[in-house]
Amino acid sequence: MTRVGIIGIGHTVFGRRSDATVQELAYEAYRDALTDAKMDPEFIDASVIGSVPEYHKQRSLAGVIQEYLGLNPRPTWLTEVACASGSAALRTAWMSINSGMHEVVAVIGCQKMTELTTAEILALMGRVGDVQWESGFGTTFPGYYAMFAQRHCHEYGTTKDQLTAVAVKNHFYGASNPKALFQKEITVQKAQESDPVASPLNVYDCCANADGAAVMILAAEGKAREIGGDRTVWLDGLGCATASMSVLRRPELTSLPSARDAAEQAYKMAGVTAADIKVAEVHDCFTIAELMAYEDLGFCPKGQGGPFIEERQSYIGGSTPVNVDGGLKSKGHPIGATGVSMTYEIVSQLRGECGPRQVPDADIGLTHNVGGIGQYCFVHVLRRD
Amino acid sequence: MTRVGIIGIGHTVFGRRSDATVQELAYEAYRDALTDAKMDPEFIDASVIGSVPEYHKQRSLAGVIQEYLGLNPRPTWLTEVACASGSAALRTAWMSINSGMHEVVAVIGCQKMTELTTAEILALMGRVGDVQWESGFGTTFPGYYAMFAQRHCHEYGTTKDQLTAVAVKNHFYGASNPKALFQKEITVQKAQESDPVASPLNVYDCCANADGAAVMILAAEGKAREIGGDRTVWLDGLGCATASMSVLRRPELTSLPSARDAAEQAYKMAGVTAADIKVAEVHDCFTIAELMAYEDLGFCPKGQGGPFIEERQSYIGGSTPVNVDGGLKSKGHPIGATGVSMTYEIVSQLRGECGPRQVPDADIGLTHNVGGIGQYCFVHVLRRD
Repeated sequence: MTRVGIIGIGHTVFGRRSDATVQELAYEAYRDALTDAKMDPEFIDASVIGSVPEYHKQRSLAGVIQEYLGLNPRPTWLTEVACASGSAALRTAWMSINSGMHEVVAVIGCQKMTELTTAEILALMGRVGDVQWESGFGTTFPGYYAMFAQRHCHEYGTTKDQLTAVAVKNHFYGASNPKALFQKEITVQKAQESDPVASPLNVYDCCANADGAAVMILAAEGKAREIGGDRTVWLDGLGCATASMSVLRRPELTSLPSARDAAEQAYKMAGVTAADIKVAEVHDCFTIAELMAYEDLGFCPKGQGGPFIEERQSYIGGSTPVNVDGGLKSKGHPIGATGVSMTYEIVSQLRGECGPRQVPDADIGLTHNVGGIGQYCFVHVLRRD
Repeated sequence: MTRVGIIGIGHTVFGRRSDATVQELAYEAYRDALTDAKMDPEFIDASVIGSVPEYHKQRSLAGVIQEYLGLNPRPTWLTEVACASGSAALRTAWMSINSGMHEVVAVIGCQKMTELTTAEILALMGRVGDVQWESGFGTTFPGYYAMFAQRHCHEYGTTKDQLTAVAVKNHFYGASNPKALFQKEITVQKAQESDPVASPLNVYDCCANADGAAVMILAAEGKAREIGGDRTVWLDGLGCATASMSVLRRPELTSLPSARDAAEQAYKMAGVTAADIKVAEVHDCFTIAELMAYEDLGFCPKGQGGPFIEERQSYIGGSTPVNVDGGLKSKGHPIGATGVSMTYEIVSQLRGECGPRQVPDADIGLTHNVGGIGQYCFVHVLRRD
């Protein structure tokens, strides 16, 4: 195996982007990635699109983006695994390079959601749960995660204040991220007085739909050193696992088995442990999801996610800073873009380019990207030499 | 690079499969592939799903199929590039094996279309053309291909009888394929008296929507020799190219540039030429599409597709037998399954297992799978040692 390096990164502002089509969002991030890499687009051999197609009026998204970015006649493909589509794109790009098929690949995570009504989005998201046995009877994503939260509180004594603390942290950091949808801090009181969604989750426990795109340019080791020099960040560990889609068939509700499995694979491949991770991006679609991720990734023992956030261990200065770009909660969650957006933050951190949000001495980072309600999880370990 | 071998194949009957959900169709083909390979499913490291998600009520298809096939917690991903989604799945599976990430991968092409109304399917398919400049004004797939046909007739003197001859051939072979939707021969008269769709195309110039699935089990060289022995068929050449999605921006209408580019790549990689291809599966979504494929793949000179079919060169006994399983025209076209279904036929032919439809001395075969109106094309060259 060759190492695969990330040599260029781009990221749009996330939010209600009525100013741009999905291909325009992709271009905006792609242009920034080329500028960042200071490279000629002629070097790009192929592209991979991470997106969930059915949110867009225009389908055949890989084709329309390939043309809009001026990448014809080069190959492309789209990967879809719900909210982890961007990480699947990165994983298949890594494979394409390591297989010798391609040398430099642009990975484009993109999604436009705000043209749909809330009812349309709810219907689409419901279909990502088990249609036959669950969502057909009314389960929604907030409902699933509320069950996880109820069970976590019951088994481990996790409190509402601990859940809220996740939202407060992520808004605190999002306030200084110019790419975030919500660039404002919130208080515990404001979060807890927000409208209830599914007990114990209120509006501020939930991330928001958004439009946006992020792009990574990946290259085989030799090419990465040539173009990226010592700014290159290496994608050294990749884990991917699946679990029962139906929550009815899960052995427990306080952990995502796919996340534990994917983390184990990624740590092993990169030759690191949880203790080596200096900065992490985790899939905080709901506050409880971030808390479970602390445990599934081994940042704290099982059941100790509540105290972990209460003790500010996931703040900069704590044992493992998490989502210091604001996370899905504050940045917004344009589903196909999210896995690539997480990678954008980790690359920026490992390069030391995060200004006031910079984690000191960050040399190894991690992304944790969940699809659906944990039927997929992708964990990637990145490193700067 | 290691060689990648196909060691197990499965295929459902294509048609109106009201008896099965999409995951049940996938299982039906998967079970047959395991039986064919005489292998324990424990050897399978990952799966790849080729499908267009938005035709199904149940989304997150990779997750639901992974669970239904008993493949949790192993990795999966779904590829979507319109009607070439199955070939993109094969390509990424090849990459995953050659990258060293996986050793044995199940590729599952599947689609259920007949639950939707014709109007719903037309709307979905229209969105695979350029929404902003073309399908928004009423272009449909038959309309695009009718333009290609008109231009081919104008430039090269291609006749209506030559177009019809493609349909007659494909129904002739489909009549003896137990997996085909239409297992009956047709006459020139019947085809030409069928309802007009978009001049010069009538109903019998167009393939039909269908439900179905096909599965290939791919393995790295050593494992393939161990499990598949000398029945193994090798995926030795892979080509993928893209072209302008908008037909308005194409330099010509009588050829698909993506097909020519993909064929060139696949031939080069496999070290063969068009003359070496003993049997081919091409994307005959419309009769004109098969005729253009003869030319784009180099089976005959540019403009000579009409005489090529008229002289029965694409029948068994001719210079390059094409679609001797009935093609999309007679088998039906469950879009995500099609690229894998084509591969099923070529593997069967190279193994010499096609009975009355067997092409003599078939040792090298080809698949040609078009996505959209040629914004993507995948060409694969397969070989039996």
